[in-house]
Parts: sequence; structure tokens; C-alpha cells
Amino acid sequence: MRVAVALKKSWRMFNHGPVTLVSASAGGVDNVMAAAWVTPLDFDPPKFTVVLASDTYTRALAERSGELMLQVPTVSMLSVIEGVGACSGRDVDKWTKFAIEREREDGVAAPLVAGCVGWMAAKIIDEPRLATEYDLFICQGFAAWADDRAFSEGRLRDDVPPELRTVHHIAGGTYIVDGDLVRASHG
Amino acid sequence: MRVAVALKKSWRMFNHGPVTLVSASAGGVDNVMAAAWVTPLDFDPPKFTVVLASDTYTRALAERSGELMLQVPTVSMLSVIEGVGACSGRDVDKWTKFAIEREREDGVAAPLVAGCVGWMAAKIIDEPRLATEYDLFICQGFAAWADDRAFSEGRLRDDVPPELRTVHHIAGGTYIVDGDLVRASHG
Repeated sequence: MRVAVALKKSWRMFNHGPVTLVSASAGGVDNVMAAAWVTPLDFDPPKFTVVLASDTYTRALAERSGELMLQVPTVSMLSVIEGVGACSGRDVDKWTKFAIEREREDGVAAPLVAGCVGWMAAKIIDEPRLATEYDLFICQGFAAWADDRAFSEGRLRDDVPPELRTVHHIAGGTYIVDGDLVRASHG
Repeated sequence: MRVAVALKKSWRMFNHGPVTLVSASAGGVDNVMAAAWVTPLDFDPPKFTVVLASDTYTRALAERSGELMLQVPTVSMLSVIEGVGACSGRDVDKWTKFAIEREREDGVAAPLVAGCVGWMAAKIIDEPRLATEYDLFICQGFAAWADDRAFSEGRLRDDVPPELRTVHHIAGGTYIVDGDLVRASHG
């Protein structure tokens, strides 16, 4: 079930470096792309760095609305992750093409991609030179949700069902699925 | 065995979001810290974003020398990863305290932490406002090496021995070990 996550704990959902889906909406048009280079930058309030190539339609919509949704897909969504990364929302409606359902939250511009296990609604911090020079965006989260089968207070659970495990992009359509959880002994 | 990796393929070693160890050296002093927030930013030449808290000694050494070493440790090194993150090189010699061996390469300031499976020597790009405002550094790799049991041309192998698997930080001393490798079917 999708539940709200306390903002100060929400950075944890992205701390293990999973591949993400980034969605944005402007002028009544939604789009979504895959992004491996999404990383926490600060805890409370949570900030993130996000790399969005200059020619992507999602970036154009995010820049127009000033908002984006960062979300953590699962191993069950590999064909969606690959699919939305292999075409442009300028050419096709990805929501229809890949049968992706979306949800809405009040006061949030970007749609939530159904089937993911973590969502972070974020506003873009105005850093135009970083975008131009590095395709780098800094954003600040303002609302977060998680599937409570995958995260508890933002922390990845140790009993995530196999079909809800998150994935990490290696290269060229190859991913690593989350394996076992291990704890370091302090000392 | 540690082998050189072609620079244009070296970003792949960090693409799956593993926790890293960051080392630096200045004035004859070496230090090393753990950093979860290290992410590729560009391919060729490879660039990375690195978040280094303002009070860390490794950051001070990196700023003084203009260089740092990003490296990917393994699940066998959990106590080292936790240990170097729980004390300061201003107070203790971490190399002695945690029995960490280091190696050197010609023309590279920072030491290579032995036992890791990927290493990236990088120079800091001068972005002083990002460091002050966000503790964020952008660096450009100039030499890379990999343990050929873990990476092949920078790409994570599908037969990495269990003891050499990389780990992803969740929070508070808890990590996820790399699980199975999966391939998306295109189309």
C-alpha cells in the first residue's frame, strides 16, 4: 500500500543507488524517463542531484513547471524502465505505449508512476549554470510516499518480496537486482 | 588482478550506485572516508559528483591537492567501510587502526585502497560555490583500474565471486549486497 513518508527520512529510499524513473508535467502533458544518476545531496530537507540530458522532453517539462517526481521502480518493471529510456515523449505517448498507469496528488504537478515502490515530489532549485554546463539539476523534496512492502519509514526492508526488489543499472540494458541485506558490526 | 580500465568505459564501475571509499593525500598525509553519494555525471571524459561533508579531513586533503581517489569496496570490507566513516583522520591514523593497505600509482596523488575492486583517480573541477553551498564536488577522472574478477572493461561481471560483490548503503550500518544480474528485453 502507498503511504506517506516523513520528509526527513525520505532520502533513504534513494540512498542505495537504484535506477529511477523521473516524471514531469506541464501544460497538460505528462512524460517519464529513466535516470540512473539520481542521488541524495542532503537530509532535511531532502535534496537530490539529478542528471537529465539536454534533449529529453521530461527535462523540458520539468524546467517549465519547476517540479519533477523521482521514483524507484522494481525488477518487475524492467521492460518499462528500458522502454521509456529508448524513445521520446515528443514522438510517442509513453503512458499508452508501455501501458503505464499514473496517479495524482493534490498540489503536486508531476504524476506518480504506479507500480513503483518509492516516490519523491521535488521542486527544482534554480541553478541555471549547472543545467547548461553539466545537465545537472538540484532539487528539494517536498512530499514522499512509499509502498510499505518495500520501505519502512524510508528504510529498505529486509523482507521485500522478490518482485518488488529495486534494480541498479550497469550498462546497456543490464541491471543488478538487490540481494541480501547485511549489517556491519561496529568496532 | 588489478588492471587498467579504458577511461571512456570507467564510469560504468560506479553506475550501479555502490557505496564508495574516497581517499586523498596532501603534504605527506593520506586519509580515507566512506561516501555513499558518488555518482557519474558524464561519460567521456568521465565526470562524477561527490558529496563530502565540510568537516571531513579527506575533503581538506582533497581540496589542498586538487585530487581524490574514488574506489568501490566489497562486502568483505564492511568493517572498514563502517570504521573509516565513524572516526576522523584528524584523531587517528585510519590506515593503522583498520589495517588498510594502500598502493601508489605514478602521477597520482591519492593512494589506492587495497581490497577494493574499482578505482578512479580524479581531479577536482574548480566549483567553489558548490562546495560551500552544497558540500558538492565535481571531479573528472584521469586514470582507472579494476579487479578483473569484478569488472570487465568497466562493466560489472555476471560471475563476481560472492566475497567481491559490491554493496549499497541503506542507512545506519545496513547495506544491500549486489544480487543477480538481469537483462531487459528490448521492445
